Amino acid sequence: MHIITILTDFGLKDPYAGVMKGVILSINPEARIVDVTHEIEPQDVREACFLVPEYYPYFPRGTVHLCVVDPTVGSRRRPLVVVADNHFFVGPDNGLFSLIGDGRAEAYTIENRDYMLPAISPTFHGRDIFAPVAAHLSCGLDPSLLGRRIEDPVRLTDLFPRKGGDDMVGSVVRFDRFGNAISNISAKDLRAFTGSIPYLIELAGLSFTSLVDSYCEADFTCLIGSSGYLEFGYFKGSFAAKTGTKKGGEVVVRRCEAMGNEG
Amino acid sequence: MHIITILTDFGLKDPYAGVMKGVILSINPEARIVDVTHEIEPQDVREACFLVPEYYPYFPRGTVHLCVVDPTVGSRRRPLVVVADNHFFVGPDNGLFSLIGDGRAEAYTIENRDYMLPAISPTFHGRDIFAPVAAHLSCGLDPSLLGRRIEDPVRLTDLFPRKGGDDMVGSVVRFDRFGNAISNISAKDLRAFTGSIPYLIELAGLSFTSLVDSYCEADFTCLIGSSGYLEFGYFKGSFAAKTGTKKGGEVVVRRCEAMGNEG
Amino acid sequence: MHIITILTDFGLKDPYAGVMKGVILSINPEARIVDVTHEIEPQDVREACFLVPEYYPYFPRGTVHLCVVDPTVGSRRRPLVVVADNHFFVGPDNGLFSLIGDGRAEAYTIENRDYMLPAISPTFHGRDIFAPVAAHLSCGLDPSLLGRRIEDPVRLTDLFPRKGGDDMVGSVVRFDRFGNAISNISAKDLRAFTGSIPYLIELAGLSFTSLVDSYCEADFTCLIGSSGYLEFGYFKGSFAAKTGTKKGGEVVVRRCEAMGNEG
Repeated sequence: MHIITILTDFGLKDPYAGVMKGVILSINPEARIVDVTHEIEPQDVREACFLVPEYYPYFPRGTVHLCVVDPTVGSRRRPLVVVADNHFFVGPDNGLFSLIGDGRAEAYTIENRDYMLPAISPTFHGRDIFAPVAAHLSCGLDPSLLGRRIEDPVRLTDLFPRKGGDDMVGSVVRFDRFGNAISNISAKDLRAFTGSIPYLIELAGLSFTSLVDSYCEADFTCLIGSSGYLEFGYFKGSFAAKTGTKKGGEVVVRRCEAMGNEG
Repeated sequence: MHIITILTDFGLKDPYAGVMKGVILSINPEARIVDVTHEIEPQDVREACFLVPEYYPYFPRGTVHLCVVDPTVGSRRRPLVVVADNHFFVGPDNGLFSLIGDGRAEAYTIENRDYMLPAISPTFHGRDIFAPVAAHLSCGLDPSLLGRRIEDPVRLTDLFPRKGGDDMVGSVVRFDRFGNAISNISAKDLRAFTGSIPYLIELAGLSFTSLVDSYCEADFTCLIGSSGYLEFGYFKGSFAAKTGTKKGGEVVVRRCEAMGNEG
Repeated sequence: MHIITILTDFGLKDPYAGVMKGVILSINPEARIVDVTHEIEPQDVREACFLVPEYYPYFPRGTVHLCVVDPTVGSRRRPLVVVADNHFFVGPDNGLFSLIGDGRAEAYTIENRDYMLPAISPTFHGRDIFAPVAAHLSCGLDPSLLGRRIEDPVRLTDLFPRKGGDDMVGSVVRFDRFGNAISNISAKDLRAFTGSIPYLIELAGLSFTSLVDSYCEADFTCLIGSSGYLEFGYFKGSFAAKTGTKKGGEVVVRRCEAMGNEG
């Protein structure tokens, strides 16, 4: 297997992703390169952090996932390889891989210049460090030859919903192309919190008392999306545009056990 | 041959196309995957329907064309494989393949769970049904093993221009990136209707009495585009923006035999 | 090696790039196709001209670079193959390859219909001429079999900064996705012009007296980007949007030797 996936915030206008592919194919001409997205919102490490565990399990074991969302390129942040679940993840040590491996991931800094391009630009480590390292890993390189094993890779905070009393409060992590709002509340979080108790889900002044199975069941819908997270849609239109919801918008799940007794 | 093309309305922001590629490569590591477009206007089955016959003939026979524009995913619409002209087409049965095969296509429902992912999400059949089926077809699977042969795949209506007296009335199907307006009137339709009779072509308050060969011949141009359909351009700019033309805008071809005799 | 890169202004909405890939794979099923960008500003040959030398050196020798930014398609402009530095460049003869090969490039017109599609549309030479020629070159075709060697390929003018007295005046060539403004003043131009003399760099009413190494060092930054050219950024935002700079905007480098003596 020689599959390398690429996720960046480079966009598709510039030659940067193409240049990384040239570097990869110069090292491993057999590499199969798959673009996952280059449209992460510029420098939004949190958006990328939630996407990585959404796509990587659909690739075969041994796949190398090259992830470059790197607002502090050129500073002292470390270049990183994470190994988890028989997949390899290559990118900056800025929290991008916080949701990978669940405590059982191995992380290595990238220090060995033998696996980088000869000249390291201060602004484009994707080309000069991460792409060549990904290519070498796809050829079977042992990641321990890249640098030191570390136990303290950067982890993002505020990744998970907060629970207090009968409320669980999460937030909107990203919007998909259709304008559906995707939260950080997983199907598992929801089940664990509500059990068999009736509940309300609130976002942007809208209340939902149940989930639906698909977007075409109502105008506004709340469902567990293909990502495994609670998401919000508007049939044949954009939830984001229709409601004015922004990234970070609060999603509240409220347990309503007492509701029937109150009136 | 193991070529699989992909057309969707998923956009490139989300990981959905990448996830489908992971599913494909997990089943057929030799698959050559070609993105045709992920920028179909969300849920515009008609736009996609006109594109499919525009690109598929340029691929080798045996190519599998995965097409996912699926506004009613999760409803009872059937998943479909169409075989025509030694090409395979995989997608929802919503009219997407109306212009394929010209009555000589074979259509099969997809029912055999052996060729799907183990869990079928209600919102993402592209990943759970269509991508794995496309991968298995690219490995040589006989489509009759997928499900029943059917004779009633959904066909879109209003695909072709209407003729009445000396008028033939078509419409704008889509705009390309340059803002050129592409109609549903084919070169063949035009020749059959006008023969050697002088004619006027009208759109957006503009009249054309002849076709040109290329966009640089005049400010506003009307020509048979590379798609084989009548299209309208504005040199070094966007016809759509310049004229305010919308999708569905009427294109009238008027035979003018009597014109010279009238005044 | 069978690598073919593609750069166009076709965008990703239309099937045009996919169609070219179908043509390529029909001729060379082993071709490895890499999209560099399809988001060149429509018909901006100059923007493309500066990009080509930025990405091609990162690909292995023998790579074929298919470049289609072709505002005068259908006119008498010639189709061209340029061979330089053991790379092949295929596209229209409109100046696109002005910065390739530095006088040591070989250029050939494409005239031999054996290496084109049977029908040549007046609007889509990318599909009918350039893609098949690129595919044949990737199979090892000798470019001299395509047509005549020519010594007068079109060259763009105003490519390089002008020097006069203590000023060197360049311009903004393009913006990257982040809104960074990239000029036509190379690191080499800058060093040769300023030597060890203090200097000012001016753009959009801003003055810079020194370069930084990375975008995170100040709000507004001026640096040598990964392209090797002087570029201008705004930390965590868009320089273009923040300053209103347009393509073609003047970048002035002013030598300030006398500055300390004047007051």
